[in-house]
Amino acid sequence: MKSNIKPAEGKLGILLPGLGAVATTLIAGVEAVKKGLAEPVGSLTQMGTIRLGKRTENRRPKVKDFVPLADLNDIVWGGWDVYTDNVFESAMNAKVLDAGLLYSVKDELEKIKPMTAAFDQNYAKNLTATNVKTGTRYELAQQVMEDIQNFKEQNGLDRVVLVWCGSTEIYYEASDVHSTLDKFEAGLKADDHLIAPSMIYAYAALKLGIPFANGAPNLTVDIPALIDLAKETNTPIAGKDFKTGQTLMKTVLAPGLAARSLGVSGWFSTNILGNRDGLVLDDPDNFKTKEVSKLGVLEDIFKPEENPELYGDIFHKIRINYYPPHGDNKESWDNIDIFGWLGYKMQIKINFLCRDSILAAPIALDLALFSDFAKRAGMSGIQEWLSFYLKSPQTAPGLPAENDIFKQLIKLENTLRYLMGEDLITHLGLDYYEDLVTA
Amino acid sequence: MKSNIKPAEGKLGILLPGLGAVATTLIAGVEAVKKGLAEPVGSLTQMGTIRLGKRTENRRPKVKDFVPLADLNDIVWGGWDVYTDNVFESAMNAKVLDAGLLYSVKDELEKIKPMTAAFDQNYAKNLTATNVKTGTRYELAQQVMEDIQNFKEQNGLDRVVLVWCGSTEIYYEASDVHSTLDKFEAGLKADDHLIAPSMIYAYAALKLGIPFANGAPNLTVDIPALIDLAKETNTPIAGKDFKTGQTLMKTVLAPGLAARSLGVSGWFSTNILGNRDGLVLDDPDNFKTKEVSKLGVLEDIFKPEENPELYGDIFHKIRINYYPPHGDNKESWDNIDIFGWLGYKMQIKINFLCRDSILAAPIALDLALFSDFAKRAGMSGIQEWLSFYLKSPQTAPGLPAENDIFKQLIKLENTLRYLMGEDLITHLGLDYYEDLVTA
Amino acid sequence: MKSNIKPAEGKLGILLPGLGAVATTLIAGVEAVKKGLAEPVGSLTQMGTIRLGKRTENRRPKVKDFVPLADLNDIVWGGWDVYTDNVFESAMNAKVLDAGLLYSVKDELEKIKPMTAAFDQNYAKNLTATNVKTGTRYELAQQVMEDIQNFKEQNGLDRVVLVWCGSTEIYYEASDVHSTLDKFEAGLKADDHLIAPSMIYAYAALKLGIPFANGAPNLTVDIPALIDLAKETNTPIAGKDFKTGQTLMKTVLAPGLAARSLGVSGWFSTNILGNRDGLVLDDPDNFKTKEVSKLGVLEDIFKPEENPELYGDIFHKIRINYYPPHGDNKESWDNIDIFGWLGYKMQIKINFLCRDSILAAPIALDLALFSDFAKRAGMSGIQEWLSFYLKSPQTAPGLPAENDIFKQLIKLENTLRYLMGEDLITHLGLDYYEDLVTA
Amino acid sequence: MKSNIKPAEGKLGILLPGLGAVATTLIAGVEAVKKGLAEPVGSLTQMGTIRLGKRTENRRPKVKDFVPLADLNDIVWGGWDVYTDNVFESAMNAKVLDAGLLYSVKDELEKIKPMTAAFDQNYAKNLTATNVKTGTRYELAQQVMEDIQNFKEQNGLDRVVLVWCGSTEIYYEASDVHSTLDKFEAGLKADDHLIAPSMIYAYAALKLGIPFANGAPNLTVDIPALIDLAKETNTPIAGKDFKTGQTLMKTVLAPGLAARSLGVSGWFSTNILGNRDGLVLDDPDNFKTKEVSKLGVLEDIFKPEENPELYGDIFHKIRINYYPPHGDNKESWDNIDIFGWLGYKMQIKINFLCRDSILAAPIALDLALFSDFAKRAGMSGIQEWLSFYLKSPQTAPGLPAENDIFKQLIKLENTLRYLMGEDLITHLGLDYYEDLVTA
Repeated sequence: MKSNIKPAEGKLGILLPGLGAVATTLIAGVEAVKKGLAEPVGSLTQMGTIRLGKRTENRRPKVKDFVPLADLNDIVWGGWDVYTDNVFESAMNAKVLDAGLLYSVKDELEKIKPMTAAFDQNYAKNLTATNVKTGTRYELAQQVMEDIQNFKEQNGLDRVVLVWCGSTEIYYEASDVHSTLDKFEAGLKADDHLIAPSMIYAYAALKLGIPFANGAPNLTVDIPALIDLAKETNTPIAGKDFKTGQTLMKTVLAPGLAARSLGVSGWFSTNILGNRDGLVLDDPDNFKTKEVSKLGVLEDIFKPEENPELYGDIFHKIRINYYPPHGDNKESWDNIDIFGWLGYKMQIKINFLCRDSILAAPIALDLALFSDFAKRAGMSGIQEWLSFYLKSPQTAPGLPAENDIFKQLIKLENTLRYLMGEDLITHLGLDYYEDLVTA
Repeated sequence: MKSNIKPAEGKLGILLPGLGAVATTLIAGVEAVKKGLAEPVGSLTQMGTIRLGKRTENRRPKVKDFVPLADLNDIVWGGWDVYTDNVFESAMNAKVLDAGLLYSVKDELEKIKPMTAAFDQNYAKNLTATNVKTGTRYELAQQVMEDIQNFKEQNGLDRVVLVWCGSTEIYYEASDVHSTLDKFEAGLKADDHLIAPSMIYAYAALKLGIPFANGAPNLTVDIPALIDLAKETNTPIAGKDFKTGQTLMKTVLAPGLAARSLGVSGWFSTNILGNRDGLVLDDPDNFKTKEVSKLGVLEDIFKPEENPELYGDIFHKIRINYYPPHGDNKESWDNIDIFGWLGYKMQIKINFLCRDSILAAPIALDLALFSDFAKRAGMSGIQEWLSFYLKSPQTAPGLPAENDIFKQLIKLENTLRYLMGEDLITHLGLDYYEDLVTA
Repeated sequence: MKSNIKPAEGKLGILLPGLGAVATTLIAGVEAVKKGLAEPVGSLTQMGTIRLGKRTENRRPKVKDFVPLADLNDIVWGGWDVYTDNVFESAMNAKVLDAGLLYSVKDELEKIKPMTAAFDQNYAKNLTATNVKTGTRYELAQQVMEDIQNFKEQNGLDRVVLVWCGSTEIYYEASDVHSTLDKFEAGLKADDHLIAPSMIYAYAALKLGIPFANGAPNLTVDIPALIDLAKETNTPIAGKDFKTGQTLMKTVLAPGLAARSLGVSGWFSTNILGNRDGLVLDDPDNFKTKEVSKLGVLEDIFKPEENPELYGDIFHKIRINYYPPHGDNKESWDNIDIFGWLGYKMQIKINFLCRDSILAAPIALDLALFSDFAKRAGMSGIQEWLSFYLKSPQTAPGLPAENDIFKQLIKLENTLRYLMGEDLITHLGLDYYEDLVTA
Repeated sequence: MKSNIKPAEGKLGILLPGLGAVATTLIAGVEAVKKGLAEPVGSLTQMGTIRLGKRTENRRPKVKDFVPLADLNDIVWGGWDVYTDNVFESAMNAKVLDAGLLYSVKDELEKIKPMTAAFDQNYAKNLTATNVKTGTRYELAQQVMEDIQNFKEQNGLDRVVLVWCGSTEIYYEASDVHSTLDKFEAGLKADDHLIAPSMIYAYAALKLGIPFANGAPNLTVDIPALIDLAKETNTPIAGKDFKTGQTLMKTVLAPGLAARSLGVSGWFSTNILGNRDGLVLDDPDNFKTKEVSKLGVLEDIFKPEENPELYGDIFHKIRINYYPPHGDNKESWDNIDIFGWLGYKMQIKINFLCRDSILAAPIALDLALFSDFAKRAGMSGIQEWLSFYLKSPQTAPGLPAENDIFKQLIKLENTLRYLMGEDLITHLGLDYYEDLVTA
């Protein structure tokens, strides 16, 4: 397997639809890292290690030293946005990173100007777009493909990936126009309003064989039409919704409770945040998309239908509140009502003073680098091994998702071990005690 | 393998040194469960399920239906204590369970009277013992062996296990007298005060080939002398320290942070509790034993020497406060200072309103049942696969412990699968997408 | 003044429109107190003390020993409800008090059966009423007056008071029909739907010269028509909304911040509760009434128009969430963003695990006893000195409310001192140091 | 009274023993305020308003516009320290204020160099002093007086005040040498080690008729010898211990619980902080001084001897933990176990993410300005009206302290009103409803 993986030669273009808080934090951060001004903390590809072989072998290389990933110095940035601000201006507005840091990479950021966006006001009513393409959906898709091709040529790139960093679109479900590639392409031509703007980007990328990862909870590539297209053009896809903040904590904590067979009767989650994402989610239609993505994780982890005595009656409620005093400093508070031995009640309260984009940026980076790696490794279609990064992982039709972050991590790590020809790890480890086992 | 496991026929005696809050909550609980009055929530053996085969096979039996464990109806209880209260009286004093529940199993509990304890005041200064054996350590060990034999005969038992449910002993390290079985036995005869009371019980059990699990942080069976004895008599051992409350949360949360390569600069943990355990731990010598057990978990999970940028500077502090208003309702508060992308700081606060004995009782049950199972499966010596239940897991000499509860769970589950002839699970799962992978 | 206060002779009837969680907790509690089974904690009239004279005099009688209040043994209970459950049944449903306690006063509670209620479904859509009067609003008012008269005669009562313990009505503002007594009475006859059910009870009470206190946030007696009627019949009135839980904490904490001139940029308040009150407030129309009542307190305490640098930009948001797992155990979480010296930011988080009806019941008791006392002391109209108990205090037209609970307490205490002929307390206290002051 | 207050003409010297985090935050802050760079938030004298007359008069001047206080522009700074760092260097080390702000007032801060300190290592073992005076205690006192006189002359000052901003000294109680001025002066000459260093400064100041306020919990001016000296030289004194952080919250919240007659069974308080104060308090002898100061407040507010049913059994525990990751960002966590109606239990958890010096600096400023004002108003000896600012207020012998911050505030405000010839406020306010009261 290992010998078939193409090396990460040449430059990698990372194109981001949506140059807001997350995207600019990602770009500014990587540029700062390249200058040695900061560390890419939170990025498994850059900072993480992976155990290889037996515990006693003490082999724990960094992931980036184990797997042939693109080097940060080979990345070239680009993107689209509904506003005309360049990346420096947008980063200053976002107020995620200190002005001092941003000024230290000002030249690099100012150069990156957003291409005009493919947009439909109906999908994000709270935004006032000023930098948008015109035309039917089909024409928009053609324009995005041209954007990509131009970007690749002008920058002398070897490869390109797309990561959706735009706002959450309003809630919609898959319908007939999404069911086959033919119908989807007909829909583009008919400018069918059921095709969301994010799908236009995804279609354009996949058509060109360019990997696409989706950081928002909208369906986007999670429709049969685009899954088929990904297979057809041998292109990896991944989605949906960067797993940050509260849901990250949930997929850490819930497996811990389930491991111990502790019951759960209620889980109340509230969030306060004041960035643009908070503004968009203040619209109930957009919130619904996010809510569906966030609600699902507990059900998968607890499997109430299989453990009705423990999880059959969970009351799970999620609130997101637009609260300007906190800006991007998203804060969550969870109250979890659990019960133990003989049904005795206990409570867990978690207050997470997090920073939304600080948690999301390294995820976007890893998804970009791993998607590019997957393409070079000859993998295509849904990359479930990247579900580690996602709130609402896309899986094969009919296959239940794994939301337990620890199972997701083993899946990711064992996938890397498998591709690189290393033994899979099962944590059995009886051999350490071999002489202790009665033969 | 599976065919060599002896069936769980006949009665199983569970003997508990220390009939305080944990032990009485365990006994009363199992008796209530047997009467259909409550559920054994928190017990993996009774309530937990285990996935077998592919995700798509939907095989998820209960653990107790998959592995041949002793039935709750076949358990007979006994124990030793430094007080003369019978189990009903002791449970009423502990105030963990409602009086209503305790009265419903009063007859069963009153029958269980503590045997006189092997005790040394120096190991728990805050206790005023009234029900103790006399003699040298060697004589005490002989008396405990007689107690066990009598208990077995009088109750017509097939098998017996011991689980230490006594208080935390004062801090001590392994010394010369613990280094070999010969020296240990000489020490018993010389009444060497470096041999802790808990070791006397462990020695007695192992000498008789009876499994011993240690729910407190004192060394006890974690010394070469007794590890050797365990091998010699083909007896499983496990320790140390039931993993409940704050440390449980720590070994859930820390792996989550490490998974995401998030840095940690400080972790402050405080506890308030008002039960007898809190009283004993109010003595600095006893607290030190607990502190050492609790402090170690982060080091193992974060591996600061391998990840100095992320975990090289953790300031980790643990406090336990005796606070009578809360009784057994132990409450913990943690402040965790983390940092992410580019070093930006975030904080997590966790407030766990837990119940100490409610969390510990099912662990004691599972350790008893699994230790008995291990014995029947022909396993002996250190049972690292039971580290899932323990704050400070005993491992093979030189082998670093795994404190990540999720790795511990996989280890436990894959051990069961292995013993029962099922495929180990690696979570690779690429075959679900087989047609998607370019050959 | 003191000599003009009529003594508390004979029996006092307390009539409660709304026999739900609060009312039944009040009634059961007082009955338990009368039997010596529990203490009336949280009641200033029963447990509180009041300082009289100089600090050095050490005069601190209980309030009930200082002021001539009705004795608990002289209280007779009655009420109306939209359900037919008697008080025992209703208390069992409410699940606020332990069944054991309720059974100990079962006889007393079962006797109290709700009279049919004056109700209008439009004012509380989430309730399904089964025990209601029929007729125009005018007829309903006549029926309520008859109910009161019958209750008084049948029980041989000397005096009666009414305390509204019903659900929060939907949001409405005062309109023309509420502006004068004539228009109001014409509206009753015309069955004007702008007259809320709670006003019918208030009108009936005041017409008979019976004091009326309002424990919910709906206007009720806070309209010119009924204020005039109260004056006309020399009857005390008080409202609105029992000050419990989160708002209680707010009116404690906000004055502390204001005292120290600490700035506030945001205050986010969320609540989770699962009782009938939570169900009613799940309807946005009813929630709005509560929200208006809760939002006002900060504005009054911080006076942003006078302190714009400190409080001009407060973002204040309140959420109430129906969360069945908690039942009556209302829990609140507040995040308060403050700033100090030079604008440096700090945060306060408050998590209050309270019990809604446990906090409300003693307030209802005190309002009943003090209203009766006020009537005997010859006071009439708005009793602002009772604002201590109320979230949204009713004041003289044009007079801004005082929401600072400590100013409210001084007002209450100095009012009692004034009525009883004691010196008012100013806390000046320079005389303790008289010889220290340069003459 | 008002006409006898001398105006605040000329310059005011503020001398601070201890130029650490609090003092440098104060000095840098005032200098920044003078340049219009920031606001003196948290200072009642600068930002606070005071109500005068009836509520309807709408008279609410700023305190500084009502009372003749020294203008910030007339302040000249000086101080002593055991380290030689100038104020800029010390402020940079303290890491309380941003470097950007400190650089903007660098010139002003660099000029302020610490005079050599009167120090005794036994009173603060964790400090390594490098800038200390030599001589007997009597000689040290003479040297401090010379320092003060020189400072006054060199800067052309009209008046001077001293505010102790040094570390907490080890615990000591008043003994014979502190009992009279004669014995005290004899002790100075005999270099009696029972005279603490802080007392040397206090003695020197009072001898010169210079007001002294004590921001730490050590006794200092709270001994008969120095109280007598203060009277003799007509000098105001105030102490002890700036009321910041957790105790501030406690004296806000406890009066709220007491007001409502809610019972309290336990109050657990823990703190984490990493500044020099935290380091000093890591020594148990110094912590004891702080503990005594912090423990007292609840007793006074709840008066358990007068309210045994409510407060007779409070278990009150305070912990301070040195936790370097937080620096000056002190964080407290409180768990309060309360009970209400019929004894039903509730809990309050408060998590205060505060900044120690940010809260303390404006208190030091106000104490300096009000002490100077008191001197000009002819007041001398203990200034109990300043207890608003203090954890452990000094009162007349035998007079119990008032720790309720709201009573302290009324005392402060009514003292100002009294001195300025305004009506005292009692919050009675029945006259607003005059026509409503039956004549």
